[in-house]
Order: sequence, then C-alpha cells, then structure tokens
Amino acid sequence: MRTVTWQSLSEEQQAAVLQRPAIAEGANITAAVSAVVDSVKKDGDKALLELTEKFDGVRPNSIRVSNEDIDAASERLSEEMKAALNQAYKNIAKFHQAQKPVPLKVETQPGVVCEQVTRPINTVGLYIPGGSAPLPSTVLMLGVPAQIAGCNKVVLCSPPPIADEILYVAKLCNIDEVYNLGGGQAIAAMAYGTDTVAKVDKIFGPGNAYVTEAKRQVSNDFRGAGIDMPAGPSEVLVIADETADADFIAADLLSQAEHGPDSQVVLVTPSVLIADQVTDAVQRQLQQLSRKDIAQQALASSLIIIAESVTQAIAISNYYGPEHLIVQTKNPRELVPLLDNAGSIFLGDWSPESVGDYASGTNHVLPTYGYTRTYSSLGLADFSKRMTVQELSADGLRILAPTVVTMADAEGLDAHKRAVTIRIEKLQSAE
Amino acid sequence: MRTVTWQSLSEEQQAAVLQRPAIAEGANITAAVSAVVDSVKKDGDKALLELTEKFDGVRPNSIRVSNEDIDAASERLSEEMKAALNQAYKNIAKFHQAQKPVPLKVETQPGVVCEQVTRPINTVGLYIPGGSAPLPSTVLMLGVPAQIAGCNKVVLCSPPPIADEILYVAKLCNIDEVYNLGGGQAIAAMAYGTDTVAKVDKIFGPGNAYVTEAKRQVSNDFRGAGIDMPAGPSEVLVIADETADADFIAADLLSQAEHGPDSQVVLVTPSVLIADQVTDAVQRQLQQLSRKDIAQQALASSLIIIAESVTQAIAISNYYGPEHLIVQTKNPRELVPLLDNAGSIFLGDWSPESVGDYASGTNHVLPTYGYTRTYSSLGLADFSKRMTVQELSADGLRILAPTVVTMADAEGLDAHKRAVTIRIEKLQSAE
Repeated sequence: MRTVTWQSLSEEQQAAVLQRPAIAEGANITAAVSAVVDSVKKDGDKALLELTEKFDGVRPNSIRVSNEDIDAASERLSEEMKAALNQAYKNIAKFHQAQKPVPLKVETQPGVVCEQVTRPINTVGLYIPGGSAPLPSTVLMLGVPAQIAGCNKVVLCSPPPIADEILYVAKLCNIDEVYNLGGGQAIAAMAYGTDTVAKVDKIFGPGNAYVTEAKRQVSNDFRGAGIDMPAGPSEVLVIADETADADFIAADLLSQAEHGPDSQVVLVTPSVLIADQVTDAVQRQLQQLSRKDIAQQALASSLIIIAESVTQAIAISNYYGPEHLIVQTKNPRELVPLLDNAGSIFLGDWSPESVGDYASGTNHVLPTYGYTRTYSSLGLADFSKRMTVQELSADGLRILAPTVVTMADAEGLDAHKRAVTIRIEKLQSAE
Repeated sequence: MRTVTWQSLSEEQQAAVLQRPAIAEGANITAAVSAVVDSVKKDGDKALLELTEKFDGVRPNSIRVSNEDIDAASERLSEEMKAALNQAYKNIAKFHQAQKPVPLKVETQPGVVCEQVTRPINTVGLYIPGGSAPLPSTVLMLGVPAQIAGCNKVVLCSPPPIADEILYVAKLCNIDEVYNLGGGQAIAAMAYGTDTVAKVDKIFGPGNAYVTEAKRQVSNDFRGAGIDMPAGPSEVLVIADETADADFIAADLLSQAEHGPDSQVVLVTPSVLIADQVTDAVQRQLQQLSRKDIAQQALASSLIIIAESVTQAIAISNYYGPEHLIVQTKNPRELVPLLDNAGSIFLGDWSPESVGDYASGTNHVLPTYGYTRTYSSLGLADFSKRMTVQELSADGLRILAPTVVTMADAEGLDAHKRAVTIRIEKLQSAE
C-alpha cells in the first residue's frame, strides 16, 4: 500500500491520487456483445442453448430450471446454511419493508388535489454472476426488494450449473422463473424475451465486463430494458483516527481487496501511527487468506492518505465518493451529518463491511466509481416508479384558470389555454 | 385522426397500432454533437462563445447573465405575469415540499441498526430550451425541486437572448448562476465545466435532438454528468366513456398536438358516439388555433381506438404507457387502482392536462416513449440520493456473526469472514 501525505500534494496531485483507474472498454467487447445480443434477438432459445454451450461449456437439459430442481436444492443444503440464509432474508426484508412509501396527497389550492402514487415495476430480471463461488447474498439483495415492491413477475438468470444456495434463496424470495443463462446472452434474453425467457422491464445485478456492456447496450435501446445503475469495480474507504483498532481496519481493507484485482482500497487517517500499524497488519493478515493472490494485486494500487484532521479526511472521502465508507473514530455517529457521496456507511468498531454485504439488512448493491454523487444505494424505489395524479373540482379549475391562461399565453400555447377556457365557458353557460 | 376497433385487430396489429414511431437517430447528429462536446472540453469558454455565435447567431457580452440583468427582467414583466408565475411557484413548491423523505431507522436484530438517509445532489444543471416562445414553466418544474431538495449549487443554461419570464423564475427559485448557452455546447459545459461554467453532477431538462444526444453522450462518460431520464416526443392518452364531454376531450387532444409534429395523441373509448363527436370537435376547434399547422401534422399520426369496455381501455393504456393519461369517465377516481405505466394522470372533467403542465403542483417533466414502465414523474427524489448507514453494537455483531460467517464461507470469501471473526476474538479475549 502506498502512503501519501495529503497536505504535501498540489491540488492536481490530490486529484490524480484519487482518480480511479479507467475501466477497460475495448471495441472488441462492444462488438462481441453486440453479436451475442443480435443472435439472441434473431434466434431466441436456439441461440441461447448454443451460446451457453460455447461460453459456459455445458448444454443444460432445459433453459428454465424446473420447480423440482429448485425444491431438491433445499434438501441438499445443510440446516446451518439454511438458517443463515433465512436470517439474512429476514433482516433484509425488515429493512426494505420499512422503505415502503407513504401515499402522498396535497391540496395545493382549494379544489386542486395533487397526489403521488407508487407502483411496482411489472416485470424485473435479476442477474447473478457465476464464478468460483456462488453468490446467494446477491440473490437476496435483488430478490427481496423485488418481492416487497410487489413486482408481478421476477425472473433470475445465472450461468449453469446454478448452485443450491442460489436456488434456495430464489425460492425464499418467491422468484417466478429461474434460467440457466449467463453473460450477455442472459441479459439479451431478459431484455427482448424468447419463447422460454420472459421479457422484462428492468434488469438488475452485477456482472463482468461482458454483462456490463450488454446491460449498457439493451438500456440504450428503448425496445430493450432499463437497468439498475452503471457498474464499476468495488471499493472501500476507511476514515480512522488514533482511537481505531489497526487489526480491524486491516481486516476491512483486505475484505475489500479480495473481491478482485481491480478493487479500490483507501485508508484516510490523521494518525501516522495508525497508518503504520495498518500497513503492518495488512501484511500479516494477508498471509492467512485463501484469496491472497487476488488481494495482493488489489493492494498494489491501494492507498493510505495521511490527512491533517478528521475533518479533512471527511472532505477527501466526500470528494472521492466511495461505494463503502467505514468510519472508525472516537464518535463516528457525530460525523454522519458531514458525510456525503457514499453508497453505504459503516459506523464504529463493530460494523465491518461484511455485515452489510450479507445480513444486517442494508443492500449491498451500491453505486461505485464515483456514481455515489448521483446514484443511490439500491432499494425499494428502484423496483417501483412514481406516478402523479391530479383531480380538480370545477371550483378548483376556476381558481387556477387565470394562472394557467397567463402562462400559456406567455409560452404561445393556444390550445393549452383553450383546454381551460372551453371548460370555464361551459361552467359559465350552465350557471 | 384514424379510428380503429381494437377487437377487430389481431394481436400483432394491436401491437403495431400502439408502436411509437422510431426517433430519428442519424449518425450525423452523433458526430456533430461529439465534435461540439470535444471542442468545449478542449477550448472551454472560447469554444462556447464561438459555438453560440455559430448556432444562436448572437455573441453575448458574457456567458454568465449578471445579477443586474436578472433583476431588470423582473421590472419589465407585467404584474399579471408575475402573479401567475408566483402562484404556480407556490403550488409546485407545496407539492414537492410534501415529497421530503422521512428519515428511516430500523433495528433489524438487537444491536443491529440500519438507516437510510437522503442527501441533495450537490450541483445540478438545468437546461431550458429556446424556440418560438419562452418556457418559464420548465424553469419552475426543474428549479423548484432543486431548491427544495437543497442542492448546493444550481445553474441554468438557455440559448440567448433569455426571456424575462425565465430570468424572473430563475430568481424565484434562487438559481445560483444563469448562462447564455444552448444546445450541445450548454450540456457539454455543464458536464465538464469551463472557467465560467460550473461543472455539475447531474443535468435536467428537455431539448431538441442535439441536446438529447449531448445528454446521452455526457451521461455515458463517468467523467461527465448524470441525466434525468431518456427523452422522447410528448404524448397523451385519453380514456373516455359515454358520459364524457367531446369538446373537452378534443381540446385536450389538441393541446398535446400543438406541442410538435411528432406529438402522440390517442383516444381510447368504448363509445362510438364519443369517437365520432371528438373527431368532429377536433376539426372544429383546430381551425381556431394559432399553431394549427403543427397540430394538424401531429393529428395525422394520431389515433382513436374503440375498445369493448372501459376495462379494456385501461388495459390498452397500461400497455401503451402514456406520458399523460386523462380519464374522463363516470367515476374516474375508482379506476385509479387499475391504472399503471403513466407519467401523470388527470381525473375527470375539470382536470385538463394544461393545469399540470403549468400550475397545479405536479411536475410536467415526465417519462415518455414507454419509459413510464420503469421511470418516474420527476420529483424531489431525482435531486437527491439515498445512502444507507449501519451501526452494530458489540452484542449486535455477536448475534449476527454466525450468519455472516456461514454465508462468507459459502461464497468462499475468507477475508469477509475474518473481518468478523477478528472482532469476535478480540471481544472474547477482553472478557
């Protein structure tokens, strides 16, 4: 880990230090994904089976996973695993249930009633990546809010073979259909539909560069599907003062670093002592990790910043806008009003990032790559849309008419004005 | 207006009838906008002045409008106009004020506290198109929620010369900086910043094909800026039964048609009589409009659909997903629970679309082009982002630890597990 002293840097150097590495874009990824998407649009299920054989090396008996297979998964799991998944489900459901919007109704002027109503997005598709280990936690993070929002149809794609843990959670979340599909072909299938795969309105979930590019492509086509948010490598920033425990900080930095070689890991502290202790603790703990090689690569580009004060550390964090922000200071709760541009914030010694990754209740799908400035932590709102409703009484229209008429005149929109005056005239003639 | 009977159409024909016309994309627009964006990124203010002279035919004294000029605008406006704008401001503020989120705090398990906090987006840019008449209503629809959300810095771009009505409303909404800028150059300036123009986090507002393309380009660049929503031509769908007033319906259809030749106008009714009456009334009222030519072009592609019942009319509307949905039936209020995929809904005889366009309180920036399935009516939420916060006590971590450890094991994430166990071990050794 590289250590820099913030005050010793010029403004340009400061910006450069916090600059995220560019995401490899590659025209070849764009073209490869575009070919996959076209092929799914053209040949439907046939293309899906061929692409799955090509990319995942298996040809599943059927694209859709049968209910029998889903039930069987549950029988193979240990009771301990099911209890853990059930507990996580319960906590996540509790926190997302609390996000249910209150209906809003306002009488802005007498007889002018304006409302905001929230409706679930009808059909949603969840993407769960494959890889070296299954990710049942991501199924929970997407499946629970979809269920609580009340989406009519929820489908899930994951590359085969799909792990028992994923199928078990899919059932917990009452997911309607599960498909043996990964990569760009899964995204294309959900965006456009095939004979077997349901077309969805919006697609959620993480993935590799191909999945990310496929999501970008289908979301740029109005016949395709919406997506949750832009994706980037996972990242953590820790703000710590001299009261923090260096072992805890090191463990938190490493739990981010093991995600992937491109993980971003930053510690900002006014304490040189803590900086030194953490550097040592990271090296010590690293030796014991099964994913040591991955973590080591991530650490190569990671950073310790010596700030002048906790206040300056906060300013640095707000500028960087981390996905995960861990605050290990004397009174972390007091700092919350000052914290901005973070996906999820973890306060104090006993709130490691991994509790939020799995089971505390908050969502682990968060904006990365500086998108925390404008995007939100995934929540119920992302599985819903807000519509407004208005109803005026005849008197309400009478009261509002002069305002509308004057403004329509200013904007030169004659018919807008007439839609009001024709009604007022009819009211007057009825009097 | 073309009239079709829904039941006489095949499923394919039904889909074709409701298909929106493709938006002209044109590689030449993409390239032209890309050149403008690059030039602003490279040459900053110098490029802005040159591009403004080229595209708007004027070279303003300065890019930024002075406070003196803004104050002077107010003096030139009639009292009647100011009163109308003030009233609209008041209603819109009241409705958006009511959207302020309640802070959310949940203890999911003893000692495990999860929160959701909402923060304003720091800096936002509002784009107000030029054209034949000024659009102060759009300034209200963007400026009021930005102000109420508490955005730190709000800037506005509009092509010069900027109308007095726009400057007056900019002042009402306490907008920080107003720039004499239109088109792709305005979007590029706000996305990347120049010596004069503040870089913003997110850009809002309507515009022509060039503005839309510029918004798309800067939102696809993580160094650029976020945007409000994808844009398409404005549209209305009216559901009416035999109790509706054909003159009112015709007036509403025409007020949509006058927006532009590409406006989408649809009436769905189970009453053949109403369909005939509306056809006549549209022709009659059309003759009296100042924007008759524009409305006539829009009407050429507009549609009356004869449905079997109001229930079927609702299904058609939900499938189409209109930006504006007007319901003129016997008991419109009773139908609300059945209505879905609409930007804003207008109930009954006395709620023409133009009240919502201007002054009732709801926002007139709405998803179009079928994006109502996944996007929301613009509101306070679009000027804010949600972050989650969590704080566990030592006991809370003890209770949650087995769940996290089991799940981290299943996902093969060793360091995630160790971030928990290292803390539990320290707690145990302190006992």
